[in-house]
Amino acid sequence: MRLDGRAQDERRAMKLTVNTNKYAEGSVFIEVGDTKVICTATVEERVPPFMKGQGKGWVTAEYSMLPRATHTRNQREASRGKLTGRTMEIQRLIGRALRSVVNLEALGERSVLIDCDVIQADGGTRTSSITGAFVAMTMAIHKLAVKHNLPVFPVTDYLASVSVGVIGEQLLLDLNYEEDSKAKVDMNVVMTGQGKFVEVQGTGEENPFSRDELNGLLALAEKGISEMITQQREALGAIAGQIGGGTQA
Amino acid sequence: MRLDGRAQDERRAMKLTVNTNKYAEGSVFIEVGDTKVICTATVEERVPPFMKGQGKGWVTAEYSMLPRATHTRNQREASRGKLTGRTMEIQRLIGRALRSVVNLEALGERSVLIDCDVIQADGGTRTSSITGAFVAMTMAIHKLAVKHNLPVFPVTDYLASVSVGVIGEQLLLDLNYEEDSKAKVDMNVVMTGQGKFVEVQGTGEENPFSRDELNGLLALAEKGISEMITQQREALGAIAGQIGGGTQA
Amino acid sequence: MRLDGRAQDERRAMKLTVNTNKYAEGSVFIEVGDTKVICTATVEERVPPFMKGQGKGWVTAEYSMLPRATHTRNQREASRGKLTGRTMEIQRLIGRALRSVVNLEALGERSVLIDCDVIQADGGTRTSSITGAFVAMTMAIHKLAVKHNLPVFPVTDYLASVSVGVIGEQLLLDLNYEEDSKAKVDMNVVMTGQGKFVEVQGTGEENPFSRDELNGLLALAEKGISEMITQQREALGAIAGQIGGGTQA
Amino acid sequence: MRLDGRAQDERRAMKLTVNTNKYAEGSVFIEVGDTKVICTATVEERVPPFMKGQGKGWVTAEYSMLPRATHTRNQREASRGKLTGRTMEIQRLIGRALRSVVNLEALGERSVLIDCDVIQADGGTRTSSITGAFVAMTMAIHKLAVKHNLPVFPVTDYLASVSVGVIGEQLLLDLNYEEDSKAKVDMNVVMTGQGKFVEVQGTGEENPFSRDELNGLLALAEKGISEMITQQREALGAIAGQIGGGTQA
Amino acid sequence: MRLDGRAQDERRAMKLTVNTNKYAEGSVFIEVGDTKVICTATVEERVPPFMKGQGKGWVTAEYSMLPRATHTRNQREASRGKLTGRTMEIQRLIGRALRSVVNLEALGERSVLIDCDVIQADGGTRTSSITGAFVAMTMAIHKLAVKHNLPVFPVTDYLASVSVGVIGEQLLLDLNYEEDSKAKVDMNVVMTGQGKFVEVQGTGEENPFSRDELNGLLALAEKGISEMITQQREALGAIAGQIGGGTQA
Amino acid sequence: MRLDGRAQDERRAMKLTVNTNKYAEGSVFIEVGDTKVICTATVEERVPPFMKGQGKGWVTAEYSMLPRATHTRNQREASRGKLTGRTMEIQRLIGRALRSVVNLEALGERSVLIDCDVIQADGGTRTSSITGAFVAMTMAIHKLAVKHNLPVFPVTDYLASVSVGVIGEQLLLDLNYEEDSKAKVDMNVVMTGQGKFVEVQGTGEENPFSRDELNGLLALAEKGISEMITQQREALGAIAGQIGGGTQA
Repeated sequence: MRLDGRAQDERRAMKLTVNTNKYAEGSVFIEVGDTKVICTATVEERVPPFMKGQGKGWVTAEYSMLPRATHTRNQREASRGKLTGRTMEIQRLIGRALRSVVNLEALGERSVLIDCDVIQADGGTRTSSITGAFVAMTMAIHKLAVKHNLPVFPVTDYLASVSVGVIGEQLLLDLNYEEDSKAKVDMNVVMTGQGKFVEVQGTGEENPFSRDELNGLLALAEKGISEMITQQREALGAIAGQIGGGTQA
Repeated sequence: MRLDGRAQDERRAMKLTVNTNKYAEGSVFIEVGDTKVICTATVEERVPPFMKGQGKGWVTAEYSMLPRATHTRNQREASRGKLTGRTMEIQRLIGRALRSVVNLEALGERSVLIDCDVIQADGGTRTSSITGAFVAMTMAIHKLAVKHNLPVFPVTDYLASVSVGVIGEQLLLDLNYEEDSKAKVDMNVVMTGQGKFVEVQGTGEENPFSRDELNGLLALAEKGISEMITQQREALGAIAGQIGGGTQA
Repeated sequence: MRLDGRAQDERRAMKLTVNTNKYAEGSVFIEVGDTKVICTATVEERVPPFMKGQGKGWVTAEYSMLPRATHTRNQREASRGKLTGRTMEIQRLIGRALRSVVNLEALGERSVLIDCDVIQADGGTRTSSITGAFVAMTMAIHKLAVKHNLPVFPVTDYLASVSVGVIGEQLLLDLNYEEDSKAKVDMNVVMTGQGKFVEVQGTGEENPFSRDELNGLLALAEKGISEMITQQREALGAIAGQIGGGTQA
Repeated sequence: MRLDGRAQDERRAMKLTVNTNKYAEGSVFIEVGDTKVICTATVEERVPPFMKGQGKGWVTAEYSMLPRATHTRNQREASRGKLTGRTMEIQRLIGRALRSVVNLEALGERSVLIDCDVIQADGGTRTSSITGAFVAMTMAIHKLAVKHNLPVFPVTDYLASVSVGVIGEQLLLDLNYEEDSKAKVDMNVVMTGQGKFVEVQGTGEENPFSRDELNGLLALAEKGISEMITQQREALGAIAGQIGGGTQA
Repeated sequence: MRLDGRAQDERRAMKLTVNTNKYAEGSVFIEVGDTKVICTATVEERVPPFMKGQGKGWVTAEYSMLPRATHTRNQREASRGKLTGRTMEIQRLIGRALRSVVNLEALGERSVLIDCDVIQADGGTRTSSITGAFVAMTMAIHKLAVKHNLPVFPVTDYLASVSVGVIGEQLLLDLNYEEDSKAKVDMNVVMTGQGKFVEVQGTGEENPFSRDELNGLLALAEKGISEMITQQREALGAIAGQIGGGTQA
Repeated sequence: MRLDGRAQDERRAMKLTVNTNKYAEGSVFIEVGDTKVICTATVEERVPPFMKGQGKGWVTAEYSMLPRATHTRNQREASRGKLTGRTMEIQRLIGRALRSVVNLEALGERSVLIDCDVIQADGGTRTSSITGAFVAMTMAIHKLAVKHNLPVFPVTDYLASVSVGVIGEQLLLDLNYEEDSKAKVDMNVVMTGQGKFVEVQGTGEENPFSRDELNGLLALAEKGISEMITQQREALGAIAGQIGGGTQA
């Protein structure tokens, strides 16, 4: 039994609240246990310079934590004058993962920017950001698709993410902060609605891991992500039907 | 009648929710109409270098807006690599205002850092930050006072803030964003529970203002702030009795 | 009696020397007691990106202190790699104040940049900067008006600024550095030639102040500023007649 | 057959030249096809502040590319004034991977800094950096072990890294730049001499991948890394015997 | 005959005004034609970290131009967030030159910081800065020597600097801005009172120069610098006697 | 006799290896004793903004040292977030020197960027960079001249550089690091194939130097540079014939 009473393959309670921001084209407040992230999606009718003239859109993400999202206060990156390596790594991951389920040609020369702001952190902030960001992005793209009457709905599949890890001999699903800091192996997995991998990032800094452990962790992740996608579908309501549908109703 | 139906001397609905953060020593979620700010207070058992060895404490504040707190998305200051002048001006104002009602000697060589993070902006973000920050700070200082059994409660008075302005011939209390962008005179006022001024910052960039207008605006601010302080007292509950009490029960 | 023998409502000696810079379109060396500021005005035949295409001009200001303008040497902001919050606050204030007396439409799509460089500081550097900057700006705009034969002279009124404060029970006009560091209330006031307020910034960080004190301080400021404007008029000589005149001779 | 004539499971020629730097405690010039990296290891008799007083050492890495290591010249990060996200991600990866095979307690309160400077890039710069860095680090730690007569040799196992990917239906080992830019799945794998995983980073940004593909890629990586480790053993010569030996001869 | 009527070996009028700053330990306002520089010297009772514990002092310099010191306004380095290469090169030159005539052991573990701020630029700002800085530094060191009763006066010789150059076939002394921009060879020379070279920096970017031209330019510089040193001696008055004297009266 | 057995007027062994980089338009690996520098030249079909529309080209250089090029490791400038003054001074010098032997009109509106990356440093890194950069630049310009069939070959003369200095009473050619740190006078000289000076930078920070010493040092430099140019001619092979030829074969 885990510290918070969960079974080894049991996720924390997850809650998705949509439309929490008055201005953003898409917005979701995601809570995974005590981890809380505000995800907003902004649509811009232009692409970054390196994408110009290709007839394709772009999806990108930014990630940040409020200074007191954690046990002890962290200095703001804005005061330090630069982003930490951790932040850059995470926002690159989120953007890459989201793009894997977007048909950029169908989007046209437009950008969707996702902001993931962690209000409170208790482990799994990057995976929760991806899971929430997918919903915010899909809402924003839906508005865009309606407004411009896009012939093909640009979101091609669901996308969610969870962390898994090894503590002692146990393989665990959805680590909280306390578990994360004890884990000898830590893996973040991003998967699609069709059960394919988009990202597998496993690290055994303190303990290299075997092929068997890897397989066990991937199975746990698959279970968790498939449950999450069910909740995403509910949160999206009527929009859900369009994902991967190809042509737009 | 104003655009949102308020009377000229009527504030927007204000809501203070306390203890919204699991880790911070004090935390408040303040909503003033559609303006929403997370205020957290962090206690540190040390003071900045320039205050060392004086036997006094320090109170300081940081302010930030999420990128999509506004109609159009703003670039993160962390990505730009530096704070804007507006942010620096606001966080200096918040810190200065809070210190005016704290007995720094009674605090001892400790710091209270207030973070004001604007989740959604609809005018009055700096004044709402001050009003919320006061409550978060007082909660944190209360914990500190209990823990260290401080002989004197360091918070000497209430503190709240509101904006007032002139549109056409009308003097208005608590401007929302739309009003703010039309106002020819804009004034932020910070006052104490005893009705004294801590900050008066009036600007007539497009229309210099007369002594009469100034007087009318100050009267409006006084009314609004005194109502706000009543709500702060309720939010603080039992702690409220200690403010300005001198010796601690 | 004050430390330097002045009466409570007496300004320090102020001297305005014009045309001190061989290249600038307008230049003034302002001395207020031992506070000395070089103000230069530069005209550019373009506006910043955010003002383009509106048929209006722009006025902006930058402020800096030489490292040894003060008792102890300050690190250069250029070496630190960023502006302090204080500098940003002051240059925003100067720009805002100057714009309040300029008809930006009459200016056309041109910019006037004012540089205020403090050579020596003895209190009141921001207020002296405003008072000097107004003269340098008016000289530069005059040249511009002649050169382009502008139908309306863009400067609509005089503008000057002074600090006032409270030490003990005394209300004082034009604080020097020593007084400023003892003042419990400190207020900077910017007014026009017609006696209207452009900026009122009062701070009682260590001592909140009453409505009566506020009124007394504003009266002092009014007296000081009106005297300063008389000196500005003399310094401007023939140009003075055009201010607020509407149509250009 | 691949563009350069290699079989699908065939690595490029790899060459390790040791002691290429006159000053560094360990140095290796690694060539993997046309990818060329200078790896130097520097020993410092202190640890970073966050590690102080724990009786443990630290290993960290920095990574950079010369501006003309690539087809078109890249701007120097030193001129841009900050590291890119890609660089930060890579240097965090290298450091983490190296630490997984170092007994930090056995190292004592000392740091080993590895610099990986890419002289020429043709795909696989991060994996080649890890493979070369391991050798440079081991040489430096050997000098340290001899000098301080450490009772336990701090390097616990071999460590090498290779990239694998999917082009069309083919799974390929050790992608060069041209292959890398066509791959729909790209995976970097770091493994130990005992065949355990330290890092698995697979990305299918343009094409999510199946469990079967993942398994095939891991098998390829395993083959390539085991061959690389044989070459590392040769390059290390007499030092090789100490790795993982526990007690030092 | 030159544009301003000077002979080929004639300097511009130079004026040294001392004690222009109320706070600095030494201060000089130097005017060389229309080039005007404020030089202030600040004494600190400590040395930079890299000089600690050597029983020696340090002399360093900073150089800056006001934005409107030149025909067209330059952006402030503080706004750009970094120093230009030109500024860094100049301040390294000034510091190096001054240190060549200071006995750092005699100074003790103290620093003298020289600030050279160019108020108006018309060619020769770096050479004028050196000439003025020497006087400000000597005044500050004199105060220090008296205060601490130093047994040896730390300034060992005079130091001044001038620019020379080639236009067409003519070798010219002390170029103004217009001449400087036409010169095919440009040389800055720093010499001591005893006629030795401290710095010789000659550049023929557009026209490499011969040994004969070099010799002719050095002769001109020698003449100019020796005249300047006569003026420095007058400006220093009674202090002048101590320079190079070894023991202090 | 010198520490490494060289005569007073004897250079260290110099080796130029061309075409060391697979991508660059010109590349040279220069070794001068234990000083090793990679020089690459990149051609761009555009000029920097300040050169646009003048029908002329531009040549510029960047310089950097790998962190462990020296006895103790230096922090990367990319991590510090800015270039040191030393680096900026050196890269300005290299660019200026190279431009002195390029006919910018003949180059057309194109840029040549030279990167000098010091792999190992043992004194004379800036002079070796210039000597190597000249060869890399000439190779790149040759390719350009062929490709665009330029009527005039843009390189007008050879260019090389060496350091000379004074230790005790001895004048020495081509100082290594150990000698450099003992030298009381240090001079870097850049000369053309026709024996003219492009740069003469002599510094006697710890010991001002006489006209006689200057003359002796220049003679040594002349000897060394003329030998170096012979080696450059060999390294350039067939291209060598075009330098200074005016019209292209």
